[in-house]
Amino acid sequence: MAKPKKTPRPKAETPKGFRDYFGAEVVERARMLEAIAQVYHRYGFDALDSSAVETVEALGKFLPDVDRPNEGVFAWQEDDGTDKPGDWLALRYDLTAPLARVYAQHRNELPTPYRRYAMGPVWRNEKPGPGRFRQFYQCDADTVGAASVAADAEICAMLADCLETVGIARGDYVVRVNNRKVLNGVLEATELTDDVQRDAVLRTIDKFDKVGAAGVAELLGKGRLDASGAFIDGIGLSEDQAGPVLAFLTSKGADAGETLANLRAAVTGSEIGLEGVAELEEIAELLAAQGYGPDRIEIDPSVVRGLGYYTGPVFEAELTFDILDEKGRKRQFGSVAGGGRYDDLVKRFTGQAVPATGVSIGVDRLLAALRAQGQTSAAAAGPVVVTVMDRGRMAAYQSMVGELRAAGIRAEVYLGNPKAFGNQLKYADKRGSPIAVIEGEDEAARGVVQVKDLILGAQIAQSATPEEWKERPSQFEVPRDQLVAKVLEILESQR
Amino acid sequence: MAKPKKTPRPKAETPKGFRDYFGAEVVERARMLEAIAQVYHRYGFDALDSSAVETVEALGKFLPDVDRPNEGVFAWQEDDGTDKPGDWLALRYDLTAPLARVYAQHRNELPTPYRRYAMGPVWRNEKPGPGRFRQFYQCDADTVGAASVAADAEICAMLADCLETVGIARGDYVVRVNNRKVLNGVLEATELTDDVQRDAVLRTIDKFDKVGAAGVAELLGKGRLDASGAFIDGIGLSEDQAGPVLAFLTSKGADAGETLANLRAAVTGSEIGLEGVAELEEIAELLAAQGYGPDRIEIDPSVVRGLGYYTGPVFEAELTFDILDEKGRKRQFGSVAGGGRYDDLVKRFTGQAVPATGVSIGVDRLLAALRAQGQTSAAAAGPVVVTVMDRGRMAAYQSMVGELRAAGIRAEVYLGNPKAFGNQLKYADKRGSPIAVIEGEDEAARGVVQVKDLILGAQIAQSATPEEWKERPSQFEVPRDQLVAKVLEILESQR
Repeated sequence: MAKPKKTPRPKAETPKGFRDYFGAEVVERARMLEAIAQVYHRYGFDALDSSAVETVEALGKFLPDVDRPNEGVFAWQEDDGTDKPGDWLALRYDLTAPLARVYAQHRNELPTPYRRYAMGPVWRNEKPGPGRFRQFYQCDADTVGAASVAADAEICAMLADCLETVGIARGDYVVRVNNRKVLNGVLEATELTDDVQRDAVLRTIDKFDKVGAAGVAELLGKGRLDASGAFIDGIGLSEDQAGPVLAFLTSKGADAGETLANLRAAVTGSEIGLEGVAELEEIAELLAAQGYGPDRIEIDPSVVRGLGYYTGPVFEAELTFDILDEKGRKRQFGSVAGGGRYDDLVKRFTGQAVPATGVSIGVDRLLAALRAQGQTSAAAAGPVVVTVMDRGRMAAYQSMVGELRAAGIRAEVYLGNPKAFGNQLKYADKRGSPIAVIEGEDEAARGVVQVKDLILGAQIAQSATPEEWKERPSQFEVPRDQLVAKVLEILESQR
Repeated sequence: MAKPKKTPRPKAETPKGFRDYFGAEVVERARMLEAIAQVYHRYGFDALDSSAVETVEALGKFLPDVDRPNEGVFAWQEDDGTDKPGDWLALRYDLTAPLARVYAQHRNELPTPYRRYAMGPVWRNEKPGPGRFRQFYQCDADTVGAASVAADAEICAMLADCLETVGIARGDYVVRVNNRKVLNGVLEATELTDDVQRDAVLRTIDKFDKVGAAGVAELLGKGRLDASGAFIDGIGLSEDQAGPVLAFLTSKGADAGETLANLRAAVTGSEIGLEGVAELEEIAELLAAQGYGPDRIEIDPSVVRGLGYYTGPVFEAELTFDILDEKGRKRQFGSVAGGGRYDDLVKRFTGQAVPATGVSIGVDRLLAALRAQGQTSAAAAGPVVVTVMDRGRMAAYQSMVGELRAAGIRAEVYLGNPKAFGNQLKYADKRGSPIAVIEGEDEAARGVVQVKDLILGAQIAQSATPEEWKERPSQFEVPRDQLVAKVLEILESQR
């Protein structure tokens, strides 16, 4: 007879492109978000926690990343059990689109300008790759309803403060500022009127980071042989037309004054371009007045990421210290935050353009940077483990951890099968425990406990002679009522 | 000619059953979660942040709430662009099902027992109702791989500590403990062998909270007239059969000893029932040894919520102080947390039963309780607002807020349209600002600023005579370099 077919067991796997975070990673992120929230709060920003789920209608399609226009969302259709087709719902793909919806929905109750911060996961339905996940954290601050570039300057200053607060030293980062209006002026100077050609110029500019000024010059003109030997067709601009674009990209001077003069020349009289240069000048002045010099925040026209998306000032925070890449070569850590002014986002809902500017900090990248600098590890301390020598004395062991916890010490009783004592010490090792407490029948009868310094023990085990090992200098017998004091003493010595 | 049809504007609305949280609400919740996380951490629990999205296969259908078996999840099918049907994915509906998946997936790397805590939103695709949302926060701690009831006792103690840490006074809560095994013993004593009848008894017991012992007696027997006058058929047990069930539900005595004796009588010799009573006894002993008396944690066989879901000890935290309901009647606040032992959850994946026990704190209900006690409001303090009298002096205003922030004071420059000064004060009012700073051309020329105490100003405005009002005793002129000192002084006086 055939065996009855069993239902196969479910696979214990995260969906592709998702991952779990454990222990210290979670604590470090929470700590960083809290530190950033405090800076945002001090700048007058209010917390907002919008729902993770939005209607697709409200969410729209506003992904800022022009490189990946097909990047999608996780979406599904509501089914209320009736024949009527339900709304399409989706997970938010960033924190800006929900802000636009929230502001439009609650604008009569919210103050104007509305300064808000938000932090939490966002989801992107894109092809997962190495180090690229479909759920990740963002940490944003935006000011809605303020047309003044003072709002942009303030966000740049706040971004610099955030980086220093979480542990990036001054000198290890720079916030670079550019302006889309200057680029618009440059586009006017090219005298291109065809939108398709203008878009092609924008896309080419986006490649400046990769191919440099010479590469962009070729791509704006006749074309370029790429590294693989393939020929990439150019846009076909004349040298006169390409000139202002290249002047724009390479206009960074020795100081802000020189950069601004170069930019003024690049826009060659375009009104919108001059307006953009004046905005950059005002931002530089406001920041200088607050003591944020070019060592922290600088005007840099080579910042092009997001220029296609934003409508005015654009900013990006870069970490400037070197790390080793996977091949052991030195490279700069790179971008950890970006933002800018986007004045049209609320208009979709209300018909009224509402000025807005904001920044998004890439929390996971910033955490990776701190890890690369060796700044994160303290959070990983394991608990003091009270071992179980005598199962009948469980209440006594629980009293011990109760006392330890009351003294603020992380502590627990071993709750696995206590038969093999070696397993208990293996467990303590796996937990990164600093101390094990041991009390068998003999100790209980004598009113003492054994307190074992596991850090010192591990050090001795690596180098000790058999005699030293026998003496067990890492294990201390103390009267039961001195347990907490001894544990505190050892923890102090381990610092 | 017909007008060209415009695309209608999207509606600025959260999806049905979702909501946004603003300002102090967000900060209070974050603060509460952090406080609870610290207690969990001190007890040796490690943080886990699993992905919000799981495969439907891994998630399974383990919703604990037997009242709503049709309660669903938000799910969608992956589409990778090929013809191959993609995986079904879903948002997690609790934090326990993901824990089972995580433990099964990572069991070789994780310590055993694995103590983990997790906090974050979960989603339920159910019909929204008043006060019932489809996204809400949970805050769980579970121990996987510990068969000993010492793990259950520990979680009860930790739950009591959490409640006190977030601000619930001793005496205002009680953690009640029951045991599914005792109920199993009682079911044996009824000599029912039919699963359908046993399930009917379980469902009837779940109504104990609503209909009381007499109501349950009727429902176990011939049936009952409900409040609307409708007759509800009973299960048809004889009085002998129903006896042990009623004895179980009403077995709470004056102290733990009496309750345990009553329970022992109720299970009338059933082995599993006696095992359950022994477990409750051990839990009571362990807790007493740590000083958790019945004023904080008590054995209470009338706790029936979740008894159908759990396999051993079951616990529930209730707040015992009175609040006024929507009709102005006094009632107890009720349950804010619950949990218990569930030994089969990991088995789905691995085939091996793994003992587990845990608790889930209803964060939103606990926050509501603290609000009902008037314990939450400090977080709502607005920023000091530096007003804009002279747009040309924006850099000077930014310097002022820079100084204030450096002194740890929440402060901002008004960034709306500065033309109507009244709007600036209205804005400060809407933000709950304690202080406005004013510096026009005149003040700037004289090197002074006006510092306005908005709290005192509002008090005076309510009661002042015209003369008092003219004197403006809430507004102070100070030299510019004493701005920070004056603001600190006023903030101090407002405490």
